[in-house]
Amino acid sequence: MAIAEEKKLQSYCLDIAKRARQASTQLGLLSGDIKNAWLKASGQMLCDRSEELLAANRRDLEAAPSFGLTEAQSDRLRLTSERIESIAEGIRQVATLPEPIGEIIETTIRPNGLEIQKVRVPLGVVFFVYESRPNVTADAAAICLKSGNAVILRGGKEAAHSSRAIVEILIAAAKQTGVPEHAVQLVATQDREAVGYFLSMPEWIDLAIPRGGEGLIKRVATEAQMPVIKHFSGNCHVYVDTAADQEMAGAIVVNAKCQRMGVCNAAESLLVHADVADSFLPNICQRLYDEGVEIRGDEKTISLFSRAHRATDEDYRAEYLGPVISVRVVPSLEDAIDHINRFGSGHTDAIVTDQSSTAKKFAAAVDTAAVIINASTRFNDGGEFGLGAEIGISTDKFHARGPCGLKELTSYKYIVYGEGQTRA
Amino acid sequence: MAIAEEKKLQSYCLDIAKRARQASTQLGLLSGDIKNAWLKASGQMLCDRSEELLAANRRDLEAAPSFGLTEAQSDRLRLTSERIESIAEGIRQVATLPEPIGEIIETTIRPNGLEIQKVRVPLGVVFFVYESRPNVTADAAAICLKSGNAVILRGGKEAAHSSRAIVEILIAAAKQTGVPEHAVQLVATQDREAVGYFLSMPEWIDLAIPRGGEGLIKRVATEAQMPVIKHFSGNCHVYVDTAADQEMAGAIVVNAKCQRMGVCNAAESLLVHADVADSFLPNICQRLYDEGVEIRGDEKTISLFSRAHRATDEDYRAEYLGPVISVRVVPSLEDAIDHINRFGSGHTDAIVTDQSSTAKKFAAAVDTAAVIINASTRFNDGGEFGLGAEIGISTDKFHARGPCGLKELTSYKYIVYGEGQTRA
Repeated sequence: MAIAEEKKLQSYCLDIAKRARQASTQLGLLSGDIKNAWLKASGQMLCDRSEELLAANRRDLEAAPSFGLTEAQSDRLRLTSERIESIAEGIRQVATLPEPIGEIIETTIRPNGLEIQKVRVPLGVVFFVYESRPNVTADAAAICLKSGNAVILRGGKEAAHSSRAIVEILIAAAKQTGVPEHAVQLVATQDREAVGYFLSMPEWIDLAIPRGGEGLIKRVATEAQMPVIKHFSGNCHVYVDTAADQEMAGAIVVNAKCQRMGVCNAAESLLVHADVADSFLPNICQRLYDEGVEIRGDEKTISLFSRAHRATDEDYRAEYLGPVISVRVVPSLEDAIDHINRFGSGHTDAIVTDQSSTAKKFAAAVDTAAVIINASTRFNDGGEFGLGAEIGISTDKFHARGPCGLKELTSYKYIVYGEGQTRA
Repeated sequence: MAIAEEKKLQSYCLDIAKRARQASTQLGLLSGDIKNAWLKASGQMLCDRSEELLAANRRDLEAAPSFGLTEAQSDRLRLTSERIESIAEGIRQVATLPEPIGEIIETTIRPNGLEIQKVRVPLGVVFFVYESRPNVTADAAAICLKSGNAVILRGGKEAAHSSRAIVEILIAAAKQTGVPEHAVQLVATQDREAVGYFLSMPEWIDLAIPRGGEGLIKRVATEAQMPVIKHFSGNCHVYVDTAADQEMAGAIVVNAKCQRMGVCNAAESLLVHADVADSFLPNICQRLYDEGVEIRGDEKTISLFSRAHRATDEDYRAEYLGPVISVRVVPSLEDAIDHINRFGSGHTDAIVTDQSSTAKKFAAAVDTAAVIINASTRFNDGGEFGLGAEIGISTDKFHARGPCGLKELTSYKYIVYGEGQTRA
């Protein structure tokens, strides 16, 4: 890039960031009513102006083959009246969630009479980089604004026209309802350098959230000079204990693996206690196989189900997001825990057992965002957890772990009420 | 450094980090009783072995002039029987705090019967880099271990012998009480490179905490590939509103500035509403002047107190940590807020006012870890807030803000209890 061009791009990004910071200052003081009015107006306007959205989306769809998108990817990109209605409904849903900002998290009265309140406040400015479908544009803006944060959206080139049309509507709704105009901004350039510039502005941007493939997440995690909420891979396990109800275990394994294969909370690995391998494995392998799932197992698995292939360590580490499962027979609960802590990605790990002491041991020792006892891994999800809306599922431990809803996009401040106290 | 030496150092650091990770896995499952037994035994052994500590400390004191330490710095380094007793007492205090790990933060029962618990867990391994007095070695270890984290301590060279003697005792107490031996490790080398190696190991270390001068904090913040809890400067303000009780305001300003000048929650800047400048400023400036404080003010201040010097923007940004205060007369509450948000460091900012609406506006709009209404800034402190013990005061917004006690060194996991639920 020519120096002049580089400077222009840099100053374009800086202007966006500064406007976002300014908007965030106002946004943090807005009442819940105004934010909710914006959410409702946005939902309404998305439906009212659906022709405009569909036209923009057609341009993205026409360009899709030139980006090498598969048929399935094109389909995920496609907007229809129904999909627009569902995006609008998602935004309206966010309006019904309790107001997070200003919540008094804790109150303490000290012996000297000071009242110390811990109060929920926004983080400030969120930089959201994503590769996904157009609905993410609307979802991310809704969650960020409801939690009092200004957002800078940098979507993928494949959905550029659709995202721009959506953001134009969100901004029109903002003007109508008294939300700062620059509370939502879309980065208009697809220049890769632009992402780097935003990631180097910790004084203007408080949080970066990448959503997409591992390459994007790694890049953001490495370059960002501000905190990042990461959503790395979901290598989720189901461990079937010796004391498991095998019928329940079978239903959970099949649901966790097959109900939807391409998602982060789908099971990728099955661990079975040696004592129940003979009775449980042949049947469950057959059921998975019948669902079109390839089995990659250890020797014991292969000895019990001949159509299984040999699993490598790479398999035990893999997030397949598709019709493959790795299987291992483990001699003990401790071995199951060790396996998960070694190969897992800290996303979602389930145990099926009738023994409460076993479940407790597993829950305490497995280092993961969500331990699921006697249910499917597929439940680790903002909606299923009752958060109402989520911006991703964090596999980090710092600040936010698991599904990230409104609260996870907030910070807090202390407000101390005195009557002239001084320190002795 | 020769390549062979570099490799040796790197592998030394890696070994420490791996041992810490292993210890943290065990530590996270330890009962509060065992951790408390360790704290009490540590306190006892520090007192019992005080001769050993004093001898080690004498070696540090003898070397102090060669490090260019001032008399005052040497004094802070000095251990006495009383100071050892007070370190021990600090550790015993931590034993009396409620157990943070395993706390059920929230419970939700979903319509499908799933019970979702959000449970407090340790972060894992903390890398603590500090330049301060020997007592920090003991405090940091106590807080990290009580919150279930293994800690790698890298103290300053000035206190190397004292820190080593303290850590030896903490490890002896660990062996006695069943705490993993490598839960507390001291980095034996003073090599600067070693810090860099630890900061590049996000797979083994979950959190870095620098405590010391701005240079150290900046270095850690820049190099760390894991999250950092930063404690940047405390440029704390007191704003005296038009509706302030001037007697109260005077007492608060003098206490905030003078009660202890070298600490982060001391006031560095005084803002006075124009309407009360004439009545309030001459008197308060004289009182501060009498306490030996240099006044650096704007023109209005100088016109009211002739011994004031002219303040620059640098003054308004400064954390003096000493007998200087910057002063500005502001035309309105909004100007006070803007000044603080522009020049402040987000640490502690106080308002003195009788008007509750003014206090609320200030509390909402000032972007700071602690807003103090009608009391001294000096109260922003873990002990004063009732946290019991703190590892620093965070000026970040992410994860932990304000005083960092036990809870701020923890994360959470979700534990979901089902009865065979699968997702439809």
